[in-house]
Amino acid sequence: MIQRVKFIGAGNLATHLGKAFAKAGIQIVQVYSRTLESAGTLGAILDVPFTNVIHEVDPDADLIIISVKDDAIEQVLKQTDFHKQLIVHTAGSISMDFLSPYSERHGVFYPLQTFSKGREIDFSGIPVCLEASSAEVLTELKELAAKISKTVYQINSDDRKILHLAAVFSCNFVNHFYDIGAQLLEKQGLAFDLLKPLIAETSAKVMEMNPRDAQTGPAKRYDETIINKHLKLMNNRPELMEIYNFVTNSIWQAHKKYS
Amino acid sequence: MIQRVKFIGAGNLATHLGKAFAKAGIQIVQVYSRTLESAGTLGAILDVPFTNVIHEVDPDADLIIISVKDDAIEQVLKQTDFHKQLIVHTAGSISMDFLSPYSERHGVFYPLQTFSKGREIDFSGIPVCLEASSAEVLTELKELAAKISKTVYQINSDDRKILHLAAVFSCNFVNHFYDIGAQLLEKQGLAFDLLKPLIAETSAKVMEMNPRDAQTGPAKRYDETIINKHLKLMNNRPELMEIYNFVTNSIWQAHKKYS
Repeated sequence: MIQRVKFIGAGNLATHLGKAFAKAGIQIVQVYSRTLESAGTLGAILDVPFTNVIHEVDPDADLIIISVKDDAIEQVLKQTDFHKQLIVHTAGSISMDFLSPYSERHGVFYPLQTFSKGREIDFSGIPVCLEASSAEVLTELKELAAKISKTVYQINSDDRKILHLAAVFSCNFVNHFYDIGAQLLEKQGLAFDLLKPLIAETSAKVMEMNPRDAQTGPAKRYDETIINKHLKLMNNRPELMEIYNFVTNSIWQAHKKYS
Repeated sequence: MIQRVKFIGAGNLATHLGKAFAKAGIQIVQVYSRTLESAGTLGAILDVPFTNVIHEVDPDADLIIISVKDDAIEQVLKQTDFHKQLIVHTAGSISMDFLSPYSERHGVFYPLQTFSKGREIDFSGIPVCLEASSAEVLTELKELAAKISKTVYQINSDDRKILHLAAVFSCNFVNHFYDIGAQLLEKQGLAFDLLKPLIAETSAKVMEMNPRDAQTGPAKRYDETIINKHLKLMNNRPELMEIYNFVTNSIWQAHKKYS
């Protein structure tokens, strides 16, 4: 049973995951981060020892969670010796096999969520996507994940990569469009609050409806009069016009076979 | 006081608005739609007379709500005589002045929301954006709007057009990205349910945070390794790659000054 955990990495994901573990009675024994500042911040939050010296991270734990930028994972592993240790990464787009040269017992612990500093989040509703090098490791990870989340899935590396890509569209890109909306309003002296009920309903709809069926607006019916009016409103913002055109055409392509 | 209302148009907006009015004790006296089928459907829902013959629509009502496709408004008004009547349209991108040749007493009644068939909606949280040809008309419309919504705003035509554009980004385009996410998962045999907590949290975040601060993901930090992996996953979908590149660059442009 996994009872003692170490974190390599102290970003938003490590922070939220660490807090969820601590709340569930899992012991965090050490936090490492490349900078002393962020190691210290998470160390203080979790009230545990922290370091920014990678050689001070020994394998003494039931699980080592590597939650650093994708490009930094290899560098960290080359400087450590975890070969008898259970190690996992938390990255959407990295295969589990990437870890096999460094330890036989390895896996992936991928919580599918957007984490921001200073925003509390209830981990129990977050899908945790697991992958494991063996049935025994899978059992251990499942048991651990079940302590913080009600929705634990076994997802292989190929599926997880697609999931991550879908998440970029449905979260990161979506948020950017909220931002574009907010900026358009701000420039006009209008409050972003005006858009909030629409944003809330747009996401609430797809909890119950297929997004294809939930589509509304001028692009779906290719209402050229409105589309041209919109383009005119953005004629001093060529990059916005381009995005508008691309997405409008993509919506129209997706829907014209139905209309 | 507006007590008796007519609807010209029987689409999603008219349907939801009609139901909200009926619930609030406003009398709907007639429904017109270009097709007998949709006129009949809304007529049956509201239990009121309906017609698809425009000449059967007389001005006998306190308010006539024109809620047809933007391009059809002129055609409808040319075939009717409402010149002593209070008329409003419900369109985001049409100026109020468009109605002035047809009646001195006119305005705009624009509920900012996405309406879908078969989905119930609580009108009380929907911002209703009003514009009116006179102070007297504004008072009448405000009184009416307050019966169905807690958030009634006075918004002029220029502001409303920007609001509509912002709504296209933050609702229509957002929903299309949910759809792209859903399709990517479906092709991989994965359930859209996996994405739902992420979608819900992404919108919940901007109820409290500025969307600029809420941004996460590889585009924000221009993580080329992940971006290239994602592009490779879509290499049989050139139109998706193009959208991905455009939005990724737009996010990077918006954030690089801060990073």
